[in-house]
Amino acid sequence: MQTLFLSVSDIRALVANVGLNQLSRKVTEQIRHDFLRWNEFEKSPRTANHSPGGVIELMPVSDADRFSFKYVNGHPGNPRHNLSTVMAFGCLSDVATGWPLMISEMTLLTGIRTAATSVLAASALARKNATTMAMIGNGAQSEFQILAFADQLGMKSIRLFDNDEDATRKLLRNLRQSGLDLKVACSAEDAARGADIVTTSTADKTFATILTRDAIDEGMHLNAIGGDCPGKTELEAQVVRDASVFVEYTPQTRIEGEIQQMPSSFAVTELWEVLSGKHPGRKSNDEVTLFDSVGFALEDFSVLNVVYELALEQQLGQEIEIVPKMDDVKDLFGLLGKQ
Amino acid sequence: MQTLFLSVSDIRALVANVGLNQLSRKVTEQIRHDFLRWNEFEKSPRTANHSPGGVIELMPVSDADRFSFKYVNGHPGNPRHNLSTVMAFGCLSDVATGWPLMISEMTLLTGIRTAATSVLAASALARKNATTMAMIGNGAQSEFQILAFADQLGMKSIRLFDNDEDATRKLLRNLRQSGLDLKVACSAEDAARGADIVTTSTADKTFATILTRDAIDEGMHLNAIGGDCPGKTELEAQVVRDASVFVEYTPQTRIEGEIQQMPSSFAVTELWEVLSGKHPGRKSNDEVTLFDSVGFALEDFSVLNVVYELALEQQLGQEIEIVPKMDDVKDLFGLLGKQ
Repeated sequence: MQTLFLSVSDIRALVANVGLNQLSRKVTEQIRHDFLRWNEFEKSPRTANHSPGGVIELMPVSDADRFSFKYVNGHPGNPRHNLSTVMAFGCLSDVATGWPLMISEMTLLTGIRTAATSVLAASALARKNATTMAMIGNGAQSEFQILAFADQLGMKSIRLFDNDEDATRKLLRNLRQSGLDLKVACSAEDAARGADIVTTSTADKTFATILTRDAIDEGMHLNAIGGDCPGKTELEAQVVRDASVFVEYTPQTRIEGEIQQMPSSFAVTELWEVLSGKHPGRKSNDEVTLFDSVGFALEDFSVLNVVYELALEQQLGQEIEIVPKMDDVKDLFGLLGKQ
Repeated sequence: MQTLFLSVSDIRALVANVGLNQLSRKVTEQIRHDFLRWNEFEKSPRTANHSPGGVIELMPVSDADRFSFKYVNGHPGNPRHNLSTVMAFGCLSDVATGWPLMISEMTLLTGIRTAATSVLAASALARKNATTMAMIGNGAQSEFQILAFADQLGMKSIRLFDNDEDATRKLLRNLRQSGLDLKVACSAEDAARGADIVTTSTADKTFATILTRDAIDEGMHLNAIGGDCPGKTELEAQVVRDASVFVEYTPQTRIEGEIQQMPSSFAVTELWEVLSGKHPGRKSNDEVTLFDSVGFALEDFSVLNVVYELALEQQLGQEIEIVPKMDDVKDLFGLLGKQ
């Protein structure tokens, strides 16, 4: 028994070894596999400690074999202090004994698993002939989203918008060798106009209106990942009302998602129901589908399991002594020596 | 900004530097200080993922400045696999930014903070002339309890019982130079008879009856720390019914404590109310007081804050790269280099 620690550098090495696209595909497949086992998991909405500057959340989930949790914050003002808006780490444990198998950085892994989840939802909900995506919000999540959509769903043309022009410039710099057709739009509406898929990933902790109904075309798929906290939404209420809405885990999304603007009776479908064929998903090429994504613990469980197996194979990380190993397990006191 | 990692060895070094009794006193004072600020904390019952073999819990709490959580398991069958029943680690964070200041082992720290909390409760609830304690359950928690009660509350005579004679032998070996009068009893009732304070710390995940009403004398203080999970209790219902019952945080104790055997209207008093003088605590020398302790996140918050300051002073621990440091905080993708 050991506890493996994977630092930010270890995850960077793992991504370099596997390739981001290949890793993202593995994670998408693992999330699909785990969502298809939906009823095998003990699930709960995440805990959230709110403060004026942001939120700190814990996201636990388990099946019969493994438990995972993620620690994640959301502080929109952090960039002013040269800190990331979102920072995360997590743990994978053995359910039979409670032993922590791995502690890992998850800031990078959250980018990867969020993109993989978005792709998984869009593969089930977007029109099959989709090739154009709008990326509204060009911050930390944006390149992960764009590359996963391009590689796994064949997006070719990407339309970009962010209030912060530096963020868009950074995105263009990072993806200049991607071979994608990247166009900068002059507003969120301009970016969305004519796109098959619209991804919103903005950070303000307010009821914002990034997209109004005027920007929505028939047949669009909306991938709304930025509204993920009580009081933090991105879409005009009418956009939500008019769409067919799909969520990860209803009890959590009612608290955190775009649907917090709707009454609690507002009908939604859980993504696992579509993946398993219980629900047809998109019903026509005219329908507007909305994936109201807030991020669910099961996605972290999936990525942690993928990364754990790869790290063991590649002998990445280091052992840490975070829980004691004892000759006599009832002799905790004996660890301290003479008192 | 850095994240400090304190391993089991670091906490052993810290205890050696400060002395266990001195550290336990500091922790008792910090818990008292924090319990007196009760309404400044954002509190919730811990999350619990149950499985046939045990439970894995997350315990978050925060005030305006700091957030903490503990990961802790409870697996009564673990000693059969040469693993501890309870293993724990935790984190202390900055509320303003979400930055994780410290990750620490907490298996040892849980022993220290549980004993400190027990002493704090007994200082307010036990008879002032108490000198004899029964220690029922001689496992991982027992020496921490006995030494803290001896040092801070003047216990002189300790009566021991455990079904597992090896556990009692281990306790006698560990405390043979303590100067305490340690006597082995032949049953839990025999240990309790005539004791001023009775501490129960057993591990079975069942509705057990470690103490029946026949073992309870007028004026006793019962420090029940082993019943801490749905379906896991130590006291006969009549013992609970007849006592004045004090708890840490009512919503959690209703789920986990001895009072899960009582209707939800059963009257209890929160410890902070006694410490602050809102409630008189013990009313007479004849009253039986019961501290129905399950372990609350605020006690972990207190011990993590004490240990963080001491670790910085003593330059213990090492920096870990669990969240990224970036030149451009919106450029998470840039950490991965060219894709």
